[in-house]
Amino acid sequence: MARGKLLYAQSGGVTAVINATACGVIETARRHGVPVLAARNGIIGALREDLIDTRRESAAAVRALRHTPGGAFGSCRFKLGALDGNRAQYQRLIEVFRAHDIRWFLYNGGNDSADTAHKLSKISRAFGYPLACIGVPKTVDNDLAGTDCCPGFGSVAKYTAVAVLEASLDVASMAESSTKVFVLEVMGRHAGWIAAAAGLAKKAADDPPHLILFPEKPFDEEDFLARVKTTVERVGWCTVVVSEGLKWPDGRFVAEAGTRDAFGHAQLGGVGPTIAQRIRDRLGFKFHWAVPDYLQRSARHIASKTDVEHAYAVGRAGVEYALDGKNDVLAGIRRVSDAPYRWRVEPMPLAKIANREKKMPRGFLSRDGYAISAACRRYLEPLVRGEEPPPFGRDGLPLFARLKNVGVPRRLPEYRIADR
Amino acid sequence: MARGKLLYAQSGGVTAVINATACGVIETARRHGVPVLAARNGIIGALREDLIDTRRESAAAVRALRHTPGGAFGSCRFKLGALDGNRAQYQRLIEVFRAHDIRWFLYNGGNDSADTAHKLSKISRAFGYPLACIGVPKTVDNDLAGTDCCPGFGSVAKYTAVAVLEASLDVASMAESSTKVFVLEVMGRHAGWIAAAAGLAKKAADDPPHLILFPEKPFDEEDFLARVKTTVERVGWCTVVVSEGLKWPDGRFVAEAGTRDAFGHAQLGGVGPTIAQRIRDRLGFKFHWAVPDYLQRSARHIASKTDVEHAYAVGRAGVEYALDGKNDVLAGIRRVSDAPYRWRVEPMPLAKIANREKKMPRGFLSRDGYAISAACRRYLEPLVRGEEPPPFGRDGLPLFARLKNVGVPRRLPEYRIADR
Repeated sequence: MARGKLLYAQSGGVTAVINATACGVIETARRHGVPVLAARNGIIGALREDLIDTRRESAAAVRALRHTPGGAFGSCRFKLGALDGNRAQYQRLIEVFRAHDIRWFLYNGGNDSADTAHKLSKISRAFGYPLACIGVPKTVDNDLAGTDCCPGFGSVAKYTAVAVLEASLDVASMAESSTKVFVLEVMGRHAGWIAAAAGLAKKAADDPPHLILFPEKPFDEEDFLARVKTTVERVGWCTVVVSEGLKWPDGRFVAEAGTRDAFGHAQLGGVGPTIAQRIRDRLGFKFHWAVPDYLQRSARHIASKTDVEHAYAVGRAGVEYALDGKNDVLAGIRRVSDAPYRWRVEPMPLAKIANREKKMPRGFLSRDGYAISAACRRYLEPLVRGEEPPPFGRDGLPLFARLKNVGVPRRLPEYRIADR
Repeated sequence: MARGKLLYAQSGGVTAVINATACGVIETARRHGVPVLAARNGIIGALREDLIDTRRESAAAVRALRHTPGGAFGSCRFKLGALDGNRAQYQRLIEVFRAHDIRWFLYNGGNDSADTAHKLSKISRAFGYPLACIGVPKTVDNDLAGTDCCPGFGSVAKYTAVAVLEASLDVASMAESSTKVFVLEVMGRHAGWIAAAAGLAKKAADDPPHLILFPEKPFDEEDFLARVKTTVERVGWCTVVVSEGLKWPDGRFVAEAGTRDAFGHAQLGGVGPTIAQRIRDRLGFKFHWAVPDYLQRSARHIASKTDVEHAYAVGRAGVEYALDGKNDVLAGIRRVSDAPYRWRVEPMPLAKIANREKKMPRGFLSRDGYAISAACRRYLEPLVRGEEPPPFGRDGLPLFARLKNVGVPRRLPEYRIADR
């Protein structure tokens, strides 16, 4: 049995499967006899010495994390500053780590978190405190470099493709006398990964989605409207998928420009209704629009089994890397082959991952830019494969984990986070 | 083997399980050796003599209807006029029925459809054409009189409760440093049945949804905002469910008043973003909102098993009633007991059902009007119970039925529907 404790923290927007990673972390650490503390609300909890003792959770509760969406210990949007100029913050973290004998830190998040983990991995050398820091990937945006995909993405991808399929059957049956155009807005501010996943529903030329609006392709309204019109004329109806990150040719967000007064400010969301309204105004078609928002990234009930397995595996590998003395690496996913789909988890240097964004390859869009290519389908399909639904109770609702989240007694003076 | 054919038509907004009713109709008729024709796009297809020969579908395809959302033969929004003054329309229907030896007509829909079925049931006497007309219930709105519940509602109810549960876990984990209020807009223009179903997720005082805004309770903005504020102060975050039918005290729709310019016109939708924005403007909380729209009523992947069984059973019973010589009745659901949940299908006189709307009983809202009562929970819970997911393919997507929908050769001159 190794000495010391392992600290696990969740960071950034949560997913349907980030708790499956927590499950992998805790179960693996338990097998190695290593106690796991969890930071309440991510790195904020580490700074505040607000730590959760996961030893108080039963094996059944930990197992149930595998099928529970959201972040069981709380997450946060908070980026540590550079080491220079923020030494006090790092000093505080070391005090907390020392007070609780934390030797290993697993940071479970996206791009910002990879950056934070990378910075923390230098604590050991800079401050002489022995800490191994491992990044564990998570983000529905799938935009983390290095890793072939990000746990969380596969499930939102599956949700999106299923939603397109189901809602389009609805629209198709009503189109004769009612709704002719259905617009589904999906997440993805900077990259069209989720929008691309909608394309998995399309198996034949006139299958939905008929048009996908990607952030990667500046919005050409006239061309788009012409295509909606010909689709309705040919098919009888039209399903459009639009990424929240869709931009005008001048770089402004379409959502921002169109809906700032109604419900905008800096926050995105609303490009779906905006597009739908323009279709109505210009073409006269009756429309419906949907914005699933958080529903898409929390939909554990329709999670991808592949995604759940990825999520668990990176948690397990993160613990193994840490106990193995590794530092400054991400437990990333390496794809070995598309068909049959084979993959493994590998340590990837955080230095090469932090602050780099994985864009969709150019070749993943169809020639006209409104659909996905065969290469994109080959990449995406294994990620949505398989089902692993949660158990359901007698009341018809999923049985999600309810943790005790008992706090570890504080040993240090209170700490105020200055720059919030 | 009885002489003649049975005509089946789907009507109004479709659901996740209306095709399970179609499955019940066709399988039962096949057992009795009765051929089933389906009207393409509902009663419009009957008027146009646009009929589908379901004998061309394999047993496997018909079986797959049980797990396929949308309306497999097309639906419509179209209400037959009164017999007086629209005799030509009824005359045309009889010509079509006679030309194709249709002796039984099953009309699968909501309130308008019950009315249409009731009118058609009088054809026999008024025009001397032997036709039995049976209503088969369907509507996510659950507002059909007579029947204890409407197939389609149980599944949207389950979808809604699951969505609240999952998205709220997401919000709870982010609330410390990000989104504090989440607003989910649900369908239900005139009655709060779907909004009420969200209340199934709440098992303890501080569980989500924290506030439900029902169409039955005029919107008191000040009171509502005060409750959002105290909820965020006490719980740390707040989940609000709002019905699209929410009204101001003066009777105007909140959605209409708030968003007419942005994406309104007569169409509802947008009350979610409107409410969210008012919370932001008045209380300053970061918010997210979701409008699942068609996703909620087409989500066959999370359908309620009880609902699927209801849907199939009313289809089966409809055929049995018709062949049994019944006329002018609805195959309605009678609840025998809450716990254990027991029910049966019964013939209910259409005259007592058509054009009456089932409101939520007053006692189904909590005293403060922001939650559901114990009586409401007792009513709702059996309806969301059980799972019966569709089969999924190797590609990770549901395997839905794809019918051939082969048309029956026309025998009559073309008919133009005048009043569309």
